[in-house]
Amino acid sequence: MTDYLTNLDRACSVNRSLVCVGLDPEPARLPVADVFQFNRAVVEATADLVCAYKPNLAFYEALGLPGLRALEQTIQHIRQAAPQVQIIGDAKRGDAGPSGVAYAKAMFQVWGFDAVTLNAWGGADTVLPFLEDASRGAFLWCRGSNPGSADLQDLAVDSPYGKVSVYEHLARAGLDWNRQGNLGLVVGATVPEQLAVVRTACPDLPLLIPGVGAQGGDLPAAVRNGVDQQGRRAIINSSRGIIYASAGDDFAQAARRAAAALRDAINQTLDAAGKGW
Amino acid sequence: MTDYLTNLDRACSVNRSLVCVGLDPEPARLPVADVFQFNRAVVEATADLVCAYKPNLAFYEALGLPGLRALEQTIQHIRQAAPQVQIIGDAKRGDAGPSGVAYAKAMFQVWGFDAVTLNAWGGADTVLPFLEDASRGAFLWCRGSNPGSADLQDLAVDSPYGKVSVYEHLARAGLDWNRQGNLGLVVGATVPEQLAVVRTACPDLPLLIPGVGAQGGDLPAAVRNGVDQQGRRAIINSSRGIIYASAGDDFAQAARRAAAALRDAINQTLDAAGKGW
Repeated sequence: MTDYLTNLDRACSVNRSLVCVGLDPEPARLPVADVFQFNRAVVEATADLVCAYKPNLAFYEALGLPGLRALEQTIQHIRQAAPQVQIIGDAKRGDAGPSGVAYAKAMFQVWGFDAVTLNAWGGADTVLPFLEDASRGAFLWCRGSNPGSADLQDLAVDSPYGKVSVYEHLARAGLDWNRQGNLGLVVGATVPEQLAVVRTACPDLPLLIPGVGAQGGDLPAAVRNGVDQQGRRAIINSSRGIIYASAGDDFAQAARRAAAALRDAINQTLDAAGKGW
Repeated sequence: MTDYLTNLDRACSVNRSLVCVGLDPEPARLPVADVFQFNRAVVEATADLVCAYKPNLAFYEALGLPGLRALEQTIQHIRQAAPQVQIIGDAKRGDAGPSGVAYAKAMFQVWGFDAVTLNAWGGADTVLPFLEDASRGAFLWCRGSNPGSADLQDLAVDSPYGKVSVYEHLARAGLDWNRQGNLGLVVGATVPEQLAVVRTACPDLPLLIPGVGAQGGDLPAAVRNGVDQQGRRAIINSSRGIIYASAGDDFAQAARRAAAALRDAINQTLDAAGKGW
């Protein structure tokens, strides 16, 4: 059984890409009626350009059981069409006791995700069930890309790690919980200063970075502040900026162009920093 | 359209009960093979003793799509068998932007819950989509009943509300977000001191209180510290202590006895405080 980071690093190096495509189907924006057909076309158009796909479960749940069946089909299709690419379930789950164990079972055994995003508000015992399988990863939602993430996460706190913000406390606690090397953190591209704080606190953890594209995050800053010393382990997600690059019949080709442009822009920043592939 | 608190207060007064039964099916503990048949028997045995049922979505997701179909059947059955009783989806969801909007749609329009539990780590813009419909409630996971909830929630923070714990900051922020009167908080019965802090900060909010029964919370303390001035608006949840009261064929009758005993114990504490029905 390969450990999680080995799988993630290989997924990045195969396509020389740190791009993650968020598969977030919103009915009002879909150029085709069927969610699975939409996802399939996007996956087939981008499979050689990305390291990961990230379906956000919210959009599938909003479509009821048919939406969840489309998610099931999508995961199966990615396994066939892009076996080298990671699938990250953007679930932001987190619960205590048997509920947390049940969520971990749902995400890894039922859905079969390679990794998930978690909400660690409930502390260590809500996170640990997701770290038991060393081949699967768990990215804690550490500092969000949305404005509201400042409401709790940016508060200054008296912590065992000193006087730090709540998000930095969580990042450092995550290091303590990371006994099998399969923990990562989610930090928004819209807050490059916080991204630098987290990268300094956690030099080796993989970071999942949303907020470029539609949310307006500064891509070069996110890459520079997010990567590790080797220029890796920063997974840059774009959802709407890629999958809705065109509202017309050419949506898949437009997604391909947008994914390639994002990959190339990231790689140019890596090259400029002497950290290219 | 009736506002959420009117519905909740009525659900409590109809059965003179502050008891919520958590419908958390764990396959290894089920005395019957079929989740829906199990839930149906528990609901039929307890419908006149409770104010709410609270299915935790983790357990249904862990069973895959068949589990979610069982949840759908369970909700439909509660509507028929106990139309006066609230259904709280214990989902602990929370996400930003279109994802948060999609989760709110999933919980209220797809599943049709009367209320949900939320994880407010992502701040105001992750909570507000769940408060738009004034007839539906949202309980923010404020101070959990599990040990790990201390990891972030009990830290002392420099807050606009003064030097308070993170959970108290969230409780007070919740008051600001509660523009339609349909916000509540989740606080564990295992931490009666924190429960008292929250009730003092938020005299009128409904509190959902897990942690009695299997988790060992002090019931009289939870009732005394959790209710409002009128002895209401504290919803006391028990899951395993009721639904697994017997592992045998008599599980439904045992659930009825356990639910009645919990209701009576709560009401005795209310009576002793001069706050009976």
